Amino acid sequence: MRKTYEEQLETLHVELIQMGALCERAISATVKTLLVNNEALIKEVAHLEQDVDQKERDIEALCMKMLLRQQPVAGDLRLISAALRMISDMERIGDQAFDIVDITKHLKNKEIFDELPMKDMAEATIRMVTDSVDSFVRRDIDLARKVMEADDFVDGKFQQIKDQIINLLHAHPEESGSCMDLLMVAKYYERIGDHAVNIAEWVEYSITGERAGDNE
Amino acid sequence: MRKTYEEQLETLHVELIQMGALCERAISATVKTLLVNNEALIKEVAHLEQDVDQKERDIEALCMKMLLRQQPVAGDLRLISAALRMISDMERIGDQAFDIVDITKHLKNKEIFDELPMKDMAEATIRMVTDSVDSFVRRDIDLARKVMEADDFVDGKFQQIKDQIINLLHAHPEESGSCMDLLMVAKYYERIGDHAVNIAEWVEYSITGERAGDNE
Repeated sequence: MRKTYEEQLETLHVELIQMGALCERAISATVKTLLVNNEALIKEVAHLEQDVDQKERDIEALCMKMLLRQQPVAGDLRLISAALRMISDMERIGDQAFDIVDITKHLKNKEIFDELPMKDMAEATIRMVTDSVDSFVRRDIDLARKVMEADDFVDGKFQQIKDQIINLLHAHPEESGSCMDLLMVAKYYERIGDHAVNIAEWVEYSITGERAGDNE
Repeated sequence: MRKTYEEQLETLHVELIQMGALCERAISATVKTLLVNNEALIKEVAHLEQDVDQKERDIEALCMKMLLRQQPVAGDLRLISAALRMISDMERIGDQAFDIVDITKHLKNKEIFDELPMKDMAEATIRMVTDSVDSFVRRDIDLARKVMEADDFVDGKFQQIKDQIINLLHAHPEESGSCMDLLMVAKYYERIGDHAVNIAEWVEYSITGERAGDNE
């Protein structure tokens, strides 16, 4: 029995929300690894990254099926095309969560970095990912634009962390390796924010046919 | 008159090669900005990034047309699906070239960073981008695998630059801001290498149906 387009679209929405939730869990777990070296957390992020990859393949297969069987045009074609691009961004968010843990697991003397607002930055990106996926499912262009605006906060936090790390470098020159690593971690969170903006831009494109611009 | 699948595939190949060439020119221009502050070079990278974005849209439209009109199955479906993912990676390479210039244009005292092997790293990524696109057009899985292997060289250069920057930090603590910026530039080149690996993995997938893994 061939599913109708509406049923497939409903499945697509559910799968995208699940993929977004996996990304959020992965980002959330990375924050905890900034405080403690915990083997279980590292494994959790590795598993989540694999789940995200699997979800990407499932959604891609569904989108291809919808394209081939339903022969969508105009708005529906844009919608499926946007979904295909969104999963690319979510897949990269999963990779970045893994990259963060790959750095944090080697970090020593984590306490000297307690003052860095990494948690605020990470939590802001989690909200951006949730909102960007929700904006697709609800076809809510205002919510998509809110995600784009939220990126300024994340970029500001990155600058702040960078400045604080420069101060830490002067105070603890013996920790310069760890300082560099923490700067990388902040950069990964900044990039996760950029991916959420990308998703939001694909949502805008799927609704209006216009796209604000390409972010990395 | 409707073009045949073979004609469209030929157009796809040409467009992908052109998109790859734009990426290579952009990376190449970024290296020059590491040595001199040159307004013309900055504008060139900005233009190239826009050209890459436009090419992405053109190729996406072509792929959608091929999917909808030709109803490809199995190998041909994988091939178009792979092309759609490859352009996502190339688009990000364009963004990263722009991000590099956005950093290098503010850099002062560039001469203290002359010893960093940025040029070697960038040139290796240019070769990886060329080879990854060529491997798609020629359906050459050995060349695709060569790209994946070449990434070790780029990753090694990143580690080397990171270690040298730590030494520079100790020798020139007053340049810590620039040191952080240069580390970011090296990270962007490393990421361009990762995108070339991604492209090579999509090529492998389009030929074999299997994919080694997802790199960021």
